Amino acid sequence: MQLIPTNSSFVSDVESSFAQQTVMSFIGAQLVKVEPGLIEIGLPYRRDLTQQHGYLHAGIVTTIADSACGYAAYTLMPPGSEVLSVEFKVNLLRPAKGTRFLAVAEVLKPGRTLTVVRGDVFSSNELGERELVATMLGTMMCLRK
Amino acid sequence: MQLIPTNSSFVSDVESSFAQQTVMSFIGAQLVKVEPGLIEIGLPYRRDLTQQHGYLHAGIVTTIADSACGYAAYTLMPPGSEVLSVEFKVNLLRPAKGTRFLAVAEVLKPGRTLTVVRGDVFSSNELGERELVATMLGTMMCLRK
Amino acid sequence: MQLIPTNSSFVSDVESSFAQQTVMSFIGAQLVKVEPGLIEIGLPYRRDLTQQHGYLHAGIVTTIADSACGYAAYTLMPPGSEVLSVEFKVNLLRPAKGTRFLAVAEVLKPGRTLTVVRGDVFSSNELGERELVATMLGTMMCLRK
Amino acid sequence: MQLIPTNSSFVSDVESSFAQQTVMSFIGAQLVKVEPGLIEIGLPYRRDLTQQHGYLHAGIVTTIADSACGYAAYTLMPPGSEVLSVEFKVNLLRPAKGTRFLAVAEVLKPGRTLTVVRGDVFSSNELGERELVATMLGTMMCLRK
Repeated sequence: MQLIPTNSSFVSDVESSFAQQTVMSFIGAQLVKVEPGLIEIGLPYRRDLTQQHGYLHAGIVTTIADSACGYAAYTLMPPGSEVLSVEFKVNLLRPAKGTRFLAVAEVLKPGRTLTVVRGDVFSSNELGERELVATMLGTMMCLRK
Repeated sequence: MQLIPTNSSFVSDVESSFAQQTVMSFIGAQLVKVEPGLIEIGLPYRRDLTQQHGYLHAGIVTTIADSACGYAAYTLMPPGSEVLSVEFKVNLLRPAKGTRFLAVAEVLKPGRTLTVVRGDVFSSNELGERELVATMLGTMMCLRK
Repeated sequence: MQLIPTNSSFVSDVESSFAQQTVMSFIGAQLVKVEPGLIEIGLPYRRDLTQQHGYLHAGIVTTIADSACGYAAYTLMPPGSEVLSVEFKVNLLRPAKGTRFLAVAEVLKPGRTLTVVRGDVFSSNELGERELVATMLGTMMCLRK
Repeated sequence: MQLIPTNSSFVSDVESSFAQQTVMSFIGAQLVKVEPGLIEIGLPYRRDLTQQHGYLHAGIVTTIADSACGYAAYTLMPPGSEVLSVEFKVNLLRPAKGTRFLAVAEVLKPGRTLTVVRGDVFSSNELGERELVATMLGTMMCLRK
């Protein structure tokens, strides 16, 4: 499926919205890739983001997956829109251990009002080995001005 | 449904596991209530936990809901167990604005291996008005020693 | 939460739409209750609706839960609207055995475009014992004429 | 990811379990493909399986997706196991119209107890045009004898 953005400044719009998500800098997440219908967000492991076994907390895994999914949808929305998460489901496939995490979100089905997005979160370790640790299936909504 | 814990030290077990979840103190979340099959976690609003409109990020809403759901299941597990989030779904019902948030999780169906939990996240403002901002339906797994 | 319908003929509108869902009569499901934000659909057990162990197939459990959730949302929509299922999540809590099943759906959060609904499916047996066998959390969409 | 079955008779085990799912023949669904971690189930359109607009009901879409996901997980389970649907989430992407439907399920992450599976449901019409109408993300459980 070819996804054609209708907002010619979608890259800078995503970047400036991402910069306003204070939680992203708070946890140390960075916007890595912005393409039509595709977003990547990276997050280095930090000891203060973990659950009881020292792995990345599922809520933090969700935080980067949700922003990635939301912005993937946003790249395809008309200029001046706002994006809102309606709902998402996350399956946690493996313990989120590693030195770095990457959320990769891709639009499955764009729509005028609702866009369905899939987001995968990968961990990688010092040897560069990469594993899928979680997958999200979510619905994003376009609010027009 | 009456839920009877088989672990007589479930309160202190939840408390010590919660204390090990570094992300909880990082975001300022507190364990508010621990009862058989029921957990409450509170979180004061902070500007550094927000999305682009200044509301609590859906991932942070999920973080407290997931911990609440996990520990609600954990209260009913045998001594020495570990609890793991298998999956959850979250519907975001209203913008997460307010001065304080409360995740309330209740076990719907306990099980030997899997426990199904519902978690609601409420916001409250300075007038004490309370609103449901999100609801989670999740599956938690018991790992026995 | 008080739910006030804006469509004064919501009962007959639900009834006539239900009658057009051919799958309902095909499986033997009946509309049992229609109230603002609340729908009940009943289904007697039939041997030809089962999975490999003779219990009601999860897809049939979902069929009555989805229609109940959709119509619960529909009761609150303006006259002339159409209702559409956006997505749902179902947790299967117990084997769906029994002589009769009842899907009970209640609106959690009505909205102009999206309505979030919870649906529970109960089984009952010849002794009148009732058990929760599945729970749905879903999102319904209003299409205006 | 290479998926290696531990049950050498997984094909006939899936076939005989499918044959016991009475709902499959009731709606006219057929088992189309059985490979390690992969199942396809086909369903011709029938007027008696529809919702109010004459499209395949979301519950019937779910019925074939759930069986496909369950059996995809089952192909990788040890001999003598039983498979159980724990939960699933379905996003309905387009109206389920067409002359034929195909549910394609693939294991995302096999596990000793839980297996996570993705299922896509495609419609096709008389011109052979194919569209993705729904996607499922589900969790299946292995019950050992």
